Amino acid sequence: MAGELSLGLNEIIERALQEDIGTGDLTTLSVVPANIFARCVFLVKEEGVVAGLPVAARVLKRLDPEVEFRHRVKEGARVAAGTVLAEAVGRARAILSGERVALNFLRHLSGIATRTARMVDLIKGLRAVVVDTRKTTPGLRALEKYAVRVGGGKNHRFGLYDGVLIKDNHIRIAGSVKEAVRLVRESAPHTLRVEVETGSLAEVEEALAAGVDIIMLDNMPVAMMREAVRLVAGRALVEASGRITEENIRAVAATGVDLISAGALTHSVSALDISLEITESSVDRGLLTLDR
Amino acid sequence: MAGELSLGLNEIIERALQEDIGTGDLTTLSVVPANIFARCVFLVKEEGVVAGLPVAARVLKRLDPEVEFRHRVKEGARVAAGTVLAEAVGRARAILSGERVALNFLRHLSGIATRTARMVDLIKGLRAVVVDTRKTTPGLRALEKYAVRVGGGKNHRFGLYDGVLIKDNHIRIAGSVKEAVRLVRESAPHTLRVEVETGSLAEVEEALAAGVDIIMLDNMPVAMMREAVRLVAGRALVEASGRITEENIRAVAATGVDLISAGALTHSVSALDISLEITESSVDRGLLTLDR
Amino acid sequence: MAGELSLGLNEIIERALQEDIGTGDLTTLSVVPANIFARCVFLVKEEGVVAGLPVAARVLKRLDPEVEFRHRVKEGARVAAGTVLAEAVGRARAILSGERVALNFLRHLSGIATRTARMVDLIKGLRAVVVDTRKTTPGLRALEKYAVRVGGGKNHRFGLYDGVLIKDNHIRIAGSVKEAVRLVRESAPHTLRVEVETGSLAEVEEALAAGVDIIMLDNMPVAMMREAVRLVAGRALVEASGRITEENIRAVAATGVDLISAGALTHSVSALDISLEITESSVDRGLLTLDR
Amino acid sequence: MAGELSLGLNEIIERALQEDIGTGDLTTLSVVPANIFARCVFLVKEEGVVAGLPVAARVLKRLDPEVEFRHRVKEGARVAAGTVLAEAVGRARAILSGERVALNFLRHLSGIATRTARMVDLIKGLRAVVVDTRKTTPGLRALEKYAVRVGGGKNHRFGLYDGVLIKDNHIRIAGSVKEAVRLVRESAPHTLRVEVETGSLAEVEEALAAGVDIIMLDNMPVAMMREAVRLVAGRALVEASGRITEENIRAVAATGVDLISAGALTHSVSALDISLEITESSVDRGLLTLDR
Amino acid sequence: MAGELSLGLNEIIERALQEDIGTGDLTTLSVVPANIFARCVFLVKEEGVVAGLPVAARVLKRLDPEVEFRHRVKEGARVAAGTVLAEAVGRARAILSGERVALNFLRHLSGIATRTARMVDLIKGLRAVVVDTRKTTPGLRALEKYAVRVGGGKNHRFGLYDGVLIKDNHIRIAGSVKEAVRLVRESAPHTLRVEVETGSLAEVEEALAAGVDIIMLDNMPVAMMREAVRLVAGRALVEASGRITEENIRAVAATGVDLISAGALTHSVSALDISLEITESSVDRGLLTLDR
Amino acid sequence: MAGELSLGLNEIIERALQEDIGTGDLTTLSVVPANIFARCVFLVKEEGVVAGLPVAARVLKRLDPEVEFRHRVKEGARVAAGTVLAEAVGRARAILSGERVALNFLRHLSGIATRTARMVDLIKGLRAVVVDTRKTTPGLRALEKYAVRVGGGKNHRFGLYDGVLIKDNHIRIAGSVKEAVRLVRESAPHTLRVEVETGSLAEVEEALAAGVDIIMLDNMPVAMMREAVRLVAGRALVEASGRITEENIRAVAATGVDLISAGALTHSVSALDISLEITESSVDRGLLTLDR
Repeated sequence: MAGELSLGLNEIIERALQEDIGTGDLTTLSVVPANIFARCVFLVKEEGVVAGLPVAARVLKRLDPEVEFRHRVKEGARVAAGTVLAEAVGRARAILSGERVALNFLRHLSGIATRTARMVDLIKGLRAVVVDTRKTTPGLRALEKYAVRVGGGKNHRFGLYDGVLIKDNHIRIAGSVKEAVRLVRESAPHTLRVEVETGSLAEVEEALAAGVDIIMLDNMPVAMMREAVRLVAGRALVEASGRITEENIRAVAATGVDLISAGALTHSVSALDISLEITESSVDRGLLTLDR
Repeated sequence: MAGELSLGLNEIIERALQEDIGTGDLTTLSVVPANIFARCVFLVKEEGVVAGLPVAARVLKRLDPEVEFRHRVKEGARVAAGTVLAEAVGRARAILSGERVALNFLRHLSGIATRTARMVDLIKGLRAVVVDTRKTTPGLRALEKYAVRVGGGKNHRFGLYDGVLIKDNHIRIAGSVKEAVRLVRESAPHTLRVEVETGSLAEVEEALAAGVDIIMLDNMPVAMMREAVRLVAGRALVEASGRITEENIRAVAATGVDLISAGALTHSVSALDISLEITESSVDRGLLTLDR
Repeated sequence: MAGELSLGLNEIIERALQEDIGTGDLTTLSVVPANIFARCVFLVKEEGVVAGLPVAARVLKRLDPEVEFRHRVKEGARVAAGTVLAEAVGRARAILSGERVALNFLRHLSGIATRTARMVDLIKGLRAVVVDTRKTTPGLRALEKYAVRVGGGKNHRFGLYDGVLIKDNHIRIAGSVKEAVRLVRESAPHTLRVEVETGSLAEVEEALAAGVDIIMLDNMPVAMMREAVRLVAGRALVEASGRITEENIRAVAATGVDLISAGALTHSVSALDISLEITESSVDRGLLTLDR
Repeated sequence: MAGELSLGLNEIIERALQEDIGTGDLTTLSVVPANIFARCVFLVKEEGVVAGLPVAARVLKRLDPEVEFRHRVKEGARVAAGTVLAEAVGRARAILSGERVALNFLRHLSGIATRTARMVDLIKGLRAVVVDTRKTTPGLRALEKYAVRVGGGKNHRFGLYDGVLIKDNHIRIAGSVKEAVRLVRESAPHTLRVEVETGSLAEVEEALAAGVDIIMLDNMPVAMMREAVRLVAGRALVEASGRITEENIRAVAATGVDLISAGALTHSVSALDISLEITESSVDRGLLTLDR
Repeated sequence: MAGELSLGLNEIIERALQEDIGTGDLTTLSVVPANIFARCVFLVKEEGVVAGLPVAARVLKRLDPEVEFRHRVKEGARVAAGTVLAEAVGRARAILSGERVALNFLRHLSGIATRTARMVDLIKGLRAVVVDTRKTTPGLRALEKYAVRVGGGKNHRFGLYDGVLIKDNHIRIAGSVKEAVRLVRESAPHTLRVEVETGSLAEVEEALAAGVDIIMLDNMPVAMMREAVRLVAGRALVEASGRITEENIRAVAATGVDLISAGALTHSVSALDISLEITESSVDRGLLTLDR
Repeated sequence: MAGELSLGLNEIIERALQEDIGTGDLTTLSVVPANIFARCVFLVKEEGVVAGLPVAARVLKRLDPEVEFRHRVKEGARVAAGTVLAEAVGRARAILSGERVALNFLRHLSGIATRTARMVDLIKGLRAVVVDTRKTTPGLRALEKYAVRVGGGKNHRFGLYDGVLIKDNHIRIAGSVKEAVRLVRESAPHTLRVEVETGSLAEVEEALAAGVDIIMLDNMPVAMMREAVRLVAGRALVEASGRITEENIRAVAATGVDLISAGALTHSVSALDISLEITESSVDRGLLTLDR
């Protein structure tokens, strides 16, 4: 999990806690003695797909390394409203002070996974896969792309450094698709495929002629996409892009494209409604167990 | 502006650029020569309230300190679809490599400001003010709360360190509202008001008896809120909270509460659709000007 | 304790160790073999109040995670010269290399707690509480304010972000106390009380009329303070400020003010004299125990 | 100055501002419009030696890069109460928000320089020089040692990495002074002198026999120090250490020692009383000048 | 250049200066007054290819923002012993304190560019291109890969995140090349080509059957490589790898491979001998100019 | 070991892993299930001296805190080709993802230790010791100097802050060696010896007259060095410097110098050829043990 969530996660959590707790949780430090323990559950209040439980666990453990955290559903599970996702036992101060940050991560990532899963479901049976974009929340890209994977989607490139996508502005400056592709092949690592953005069938043909690996159909009508797929005829991967919604995604997928990229997976997230409830508290840690 | 956007902004921008550009924008470095300049505009494609122009400007300036950036509307302006928000002239590489990060900030913050403004509009003429919550995106709280202000809302506390809010879990551990308030008054700085979360009229009365400064009505029916406001009778500020929507906010405000806090302002943001268009490019910087 | 000492403590300790040890404790690495263990005691050489034992413990544990550290007095204890405050057993290299940093923290914080406790003692029986200011050592504010609490004082706001204090310069620019208060009420979170600095009875009256929550009496003669308290008559908290000393604090408190803020608690600290003595060393860790 | 104050200064200032301003100076942002400029002076209220003016300047410039800052006295000047040390013109928000941090640095460093200068004055005409110790405030060592230099003192080693000082604990573990010195000569860079702590004349002789470069006389009576100096007879530098005060420093210096190290220079600092006064403010930057 | 050298360069330079200068360049601060300026030249003492001049410039500018730095040869130039590469004018303290760090970068990067250029020259006229590996110096990968490009080579993937390379250990755990390729195609972004390491012709055939994009021939004899190229017949890119030297590279290239990766470009660097000479110094900055 | 390798090591390792793994090891995450464990060995393929095993261990433990790592030879051992240096058991993902970084450190540091040991061997029986210089790889100085010690060499100063070395440029600006030495003695801590660079016998005499502690003979012919040693006659340490090679080092040492500094130890490193081989893998951790 450490691997999948990438090396920078500890730092992201540290910043989030610093941002929320700062010089101290005044209410909790005033009201809750240091020697009180609590048992709590993470409860989902609407249907969805869960992503971020390991992040929530790490948030609580940062505040109390002895917190016990137990998944009650697997990361990526589809859950009904009312499901207990996980439970934790630890110092009451740590749970109360970490609650909001843990939930902010969990709700945001689950919101992304849930929407991704809905998109993926809508095109079941067709060859296309749903992929994300670079339209992510600044600072959270790795986590958001993780949530897309948890929701059943695939990742497009992570940034400008690990993929090549020649857009209209690049083409205009290079003079032609062909020249842009030549320049990229000369400079960028050979380990990367080359993708070009196209807006018309003429541009699709130009891209094919330039020998690109992936052709993005940008904001094309569905009929034109179908024609483009026919034109390409397997000589390149075809990616549909631009204003993909739950309403139109199946029609887009039915054109035969290989990939459908949807910025809304990450740029317009509705948090999944999850809360943390304290079920018991005690000065006797032994009375609080995870097994019930 | 630097002050309003807080000291940490440079670091947030640096991380966002690092996340997107990493070891280099391969496409742009391959295709666009270092000596090309470009003029571009930020174009909004749907109606909304703009927030984040100074952030977008700083993103571009980080990549090319000589970028010229000019606002065409003021931060906080309500704009129609098709409005040019700002224009910039600078190195084409900087503009192309910074475009996505600049837009990710601008679209996200404008999304927040737009929703806040809609909420504020809906209760025009009533005494209540719209405030945000701690349900923010990890790492972006200061910026998101700035966007709420730009949209006409007010900020609630920034974190656990600059405000006191006694919730049900605190009360349960303290034994009573009265004891929780006493403990907080004893420990927390006298410069802070004390707020208590209540869920019933009995709890409102208990809070009043404990002498709190602010009473949060959490998830109460509108009729109960109205009764609570009557009960409090100006002896404390009253804050409505819980599942506030554009549908119910006016009814809630009409109960006479002082504050309405809405988590959705920041936890479920729809990005405002804004794009960056390159209008000209040239090796001659002098040909590209901001004044037209 | 982690909570009370705030999230940033590890980083503060890391910097302090880095500052002192840098590329290595040349003397200790040359002279002391890696396999030697030592038992040491922290010994106070003058009367005072102890603050910072958990910080000292964490310093040693950073250098040797297996150090055992035992409090012999509680944090906040009033101790006589010659008292053993704590003892530790661990690798001799860690103890010798961490000694100075551990003591620098412990002596500085105990110096603050000791002076605070003296101030608090001097006004025993009166309603006033002693509070700190923002006149702290750069980089150590959270720790210094913690030491004030350990010494029996209370904290004023932590910084400019978690409290409102309208000073003469603000008033001059706003035009009047009333206008300054209006502007602050409009912008700052409702969770904060509003405090105004006053220098005369006329200003006290103006502040009262503006409806402020706290009135600071800045550098007023004691007689004028007494009159101010009478004027305010419980309608706001009253804070005495300016050149508070051990000589004048009881007279100030006797005026009936609610709070007395003293910058000298943190800006002019006399370190409490504490030393670390190695009592035994051995290659056999088992021979060194904490229990005697 | 940049060089003398070391590379890390920007980071220290950033942390200090972050600590004080955090998410924003609520009072100033509410009350002071962004377009107001101010002229201010730094005024010293008691006699002393000034250190830290370049730090104060950098604090203000961090908040407004266009602040103009002019020294009215030189760094290190001895000043009478009432002297204007420096003046500045810039955005009123920057000056008001940076005031406290600028003063906290300036007052603390001037406190150190002032005490150092007093010590140095007290031994005028004698060969001894006053040096500092590692008993500094965590995080501020480089600045505090700078202030000692400004006050006319000299620096001892900066930390454990740039000097060798064999103390009693090292000797005990090594078995003898001779063996400890041998071990250090074998391991530590040849660019460093070797110093040994001694507590008796016998130990001084042992140190001399071991061929050390510097002998520290730790907490010796003045008469014993005089005898030690005689014994050493120029074969090593001699450093007096331990409870050096303004009362006893001249007697200590009169023994003929080369160096006198005084921890109190930095561990028990009395801030020099300096304030910042705004003398004018205006929306017209041109009306505010530094030249009067 | 900023783009090509990546966002993290400032931080790398800061750390390098911190590492070398620490609390201050004692010799220079003691001996060289702050008001002395100097003119210096970077002089190469052996034949080679220059890389890192912009880094050297930035090092000096970090210590004195007003340093003027002028290239006398272009980055990437092939230069003879005795060539002046660049000259600079600025504060003598900055030049003396930054000299070593500037040279450490410049010599190391020029060493890499020089060796790369030699390799590239040796295979002139053949289709193969020389590429680097992940065998780089920890912390300097982006700079070292930049130097390879300057020397005329191309970059392989930057790390494990931006390319797929299935090695023998992966294959063993997956069970077969086919299964490993299937798993990677399922999970990794579609924007990346898939490369497989092979050690025999049978493995080459297996890789081809699995439909990989790039086949690495690992430590194969030249004759086997030739046969592998014939087998692949353009259906995949072919990369030769393993103990490539200046002696064998032309023979390897002659087999018809597309790429030759050489770890020694970065793991065993001989610094190019470059020195910095001060040619003039003066308190009058105007006397020192770059134009001669 | 922690002490010897200095406080900053964790950060260096974190950066190296971040640089290589970034957002994730795509190949390993795709192909290797999270529940597979592996046993691996570090195998040296050529004769040399091993340095960096504790660093390699820490790299693997950073990715899997439960990795077991066992040295099969001691740090600093001279090993023949084919020797197993260490073995490890842990999660296969951690071992595969950390392999390259662990090896990059181990091979680089062992390369330095190996060359140092060769130099040290070559002057066996003579008084001179081999020392390093500041010609190190930016960011790795502490580690590289550690490797020099492991190889049997000694360290010169770590940077500009912990030693004084007056070079020709300093002398020119000061006016004379005598004046430069005077200035340094006045300013730099007394704990440091003063070294001067000389290029002729006249300069050696001048340095002696100025009372310096160490005289560097810079790029002198061997015969002149011998004369210089005779001149100095024990009144200062003598350091030979400049183009020291394995060919000339014994002749240089035979002149009687105390120290020989060789930049090539760190500026032109040939990595020692070490690889990591996975010997077994299993889902059953218990089957994989270190003891065979």
